[in-house]
Amino acid sequence: MILQSEKAKSLILEIFSNLSVNNQVAQLCAEGLVQTSLRGIDTHGIRLVPHYVAAIESGRLNPKPNIQFEKTSSSTGILDADHTLGYAAGVIAIQHAIELANESGAGFISVKNSSHCGALAYPCLKACEEGMIGLGFTHATSRMKSPGSNREFFGTNPLCFTAPMEKEDPFCFDSSPTMIPFHKIFHHRETQTELPEGSAADLEGKETTDPFKAVQLLPIGDYKGFGWSMMVDILAGLLSGMPVGKDISQMYGDITQKRYLGHFFGCIRVDVFQPVKKFKSRLQELAEKVRKESKKDEESLNMVPGDPEKKCLEDRLKNGIPVSDEDYNKLNTLFIKTIGKGIK
Amino acid sequence: MILQSEKAKSLILEIFSNLSVNNQVAQLCAEGLVQTSLRGIDTHGIRLVPHYVAAIESGRLNPKPNIQFEKTSSSTGILDADHTLGYAAGVIAIQHAIELANESGAGFISVKNSSHCGALAYPCLKACEEGMIGLGFTHATSRMKSPGSNREFFGTNPLCFTAPMEKEDPFCFDSSPTMIPFHKIFHHRETQTELPEGSAADLEGKETTDPFKAVQLLPIGDYKGFGWSMMVDILAGLLSGMPVGKDISQMYGDITQKRYLGHFFGCIRVDVFQPVKKFKSRLQELAEKVRKESKKDEESLNMVPGDPEKKCLEDRLKNGIPVSDEDYNKLNTLFIKTIGKGIK
Repeated sequence: MILQSEKAKSLILEIFSNLSVNNQVAQLCAEGLVQTSLRGIDTHGIRLVPHYVAAIESGRLNPKPNIQFEKTSSSTGILDADHTLGYAAGVIAIQHAIELANESGAGFISVKNSSHCGALAYPCLKACEEGMIGLGFTHATSRMKSPGSNREFFGTNPLCFTAPMEKEDPFCFDSSPTMIPFHKIFHHRETQTELPEGSAADLEGKETTDPFKAVQLLPIGDYKGFGWSMMVDILAGLLSGMPVGKDISQMYGDITQKRYLGHFFGCIRVDVFQPVKKFKSRLQELAEKVRKESKKDEESLNMVPGDPEKKCLEDRLKNGIPVSDEDYNKLNTLFIKTIGKGIK
Repeated sequence: MILQSEKAKSLILEIFSNLSVNNQVAQLCAEGLVQTSLRGIDTHGIRLVPHYVAAIESGRLNPKPNIQFEKTSSSTGILDADHTLGYAAGVIAIQHAIELANESGAGFISVKNSSHCGALAYPCLKACEEGMIGLGFTHATSRMKSPGSNREFFGTNPLCFTAPMEKEDPFCFDSSPTMIPFHKIFHHRETQTELPEGSAADLEGKETTDPFKAVQLLPIGDYKGFGWSMMVDILAGLLSGMPVGKDISQMYGDITQKRYLGHFFGCIRVDVFQPVKKFKSRLQELAEKVRKESKKDEESLNMVPGDPEKKCLEDRLKNGIPVSDEDYNKLNTLFIKTIGKGIK
């Protein structure tokens, strides 16, 4: 099934309005969900709407938060997200980071009392509109098998790095330190296909390609991915004073409980190091050189981080967002139940 | 053979003095080389002395640099290293970053006209002495096979992240996004042993475990390690205005040519987000929890980034730095030739 992005956004906004979600929070979250779907990151896009709605109804997510910002130095601050929707917390944080960077060169915001913040790219890309580099970090539920152990400790803790380019949307490296994302296990269960070799482990920590046995994710580069994950937990969890490691709450399960997640966002001005125009054109040139490299075979593409998402965005803006029958039905049922009208 | 660290440092300082290296640069570089060897990162330790000496004599490295610092905002600045020894450039940069962070919360320094900066951990660990998080990034010669291509484009571009702990030396994640470092290929050639599966490729881009055929390194997590490497080149190369990607100069080869490398260093104060004492004790607790995880087998250890280096440091401070016969002879010959006395 296909959903047009504008239609999706207006339905989500109607739902949020019906649930009395604060207008700014609703706008930012709806835009974040739709933009993320448009960029092809379906796991963090509009299919999360039923989950977010359930979490608002159950009391986990605060629709009318008292979001507080405290500036703690000329380049740093703390944002208390008051358990609202994480997409909104991320953008509000990056807006403060931009303001601080405009004043002092760089801005870093620790976000506390937050929840699932969706795709880090959504707030981080906004830094580039101001000629800045964007940085984002968030921790997540314990899912990554530790190299020396037979079980998981840290999460799929992603980092996002964005930088403005001359002739196209920004460079965007938004990545987790695990070989595959957790939802890929579900996907392989549905399609009854084997997982890629070396990507997951079973309950006893043994590598497996059987999606029905897989419950842990393997880090990229073994101890290197593990180190990356711990670094992100330090930035997102320890700097914000939130729980870390195995103490991080589950996304699903008991959704009456607040999540107490932390994030860390930063903006660094380009113009304090290089003329922005020169930086953008050199990054453009670098990306084009990568894309023009000799291909290893006919099917291969030489891409830079963010290229698949840019291609997807262009396609989906024109042709709409493809949604699985299951997700379509869930969304449609939810819309009818909540706002009395379906997608069509 | 065994070299005592104090002896090694004094001999290196005598050599640098003999070559009329500026005193501050000599002190920082000698300390960096010895500390790095003590921490077990032998590739970036004292075995580099003959290379650095040859590079000073050939005119690549500037022994009497006019290092210039320009503050460009209250939290940023640019350091022109004037082609001096990179170890010194790194520490001088982090000292400026610390000063800026003390004033404004965070400090970021772009270093230009630099050279091989050794182990990023050496400057980054200094941030932790001031209760700050340290960050370091440097680009390097093109060595990493691009995922879509049959040849290399980016380098082994490392990032380093340090954070202060309560009862021990700082947390230190200093890592490259390739499966193995390039020197490991040489090591396997010497010992005539196979490389680990999935770590290297030959001239045509085909995966190989034959160290005599291996010339390219594979990224961790395929496109993820590639993205990390490009991110680091943007920070280290583009922000500093230095050459990037394949245009980065070679470390060996024609050592009369200056390298024109760039680095990026940052310090973020902990106390603007959390009480430093609380942060340190929570990080301590987190590390200890990781170390106490169930082991996957008898031989395995649950470690946090920096643990092997801490263990090595303790051992080598007591028992000295083990050096291969080849490196020992090279160093000894150099010492005798330059300062008229050998290691013994």
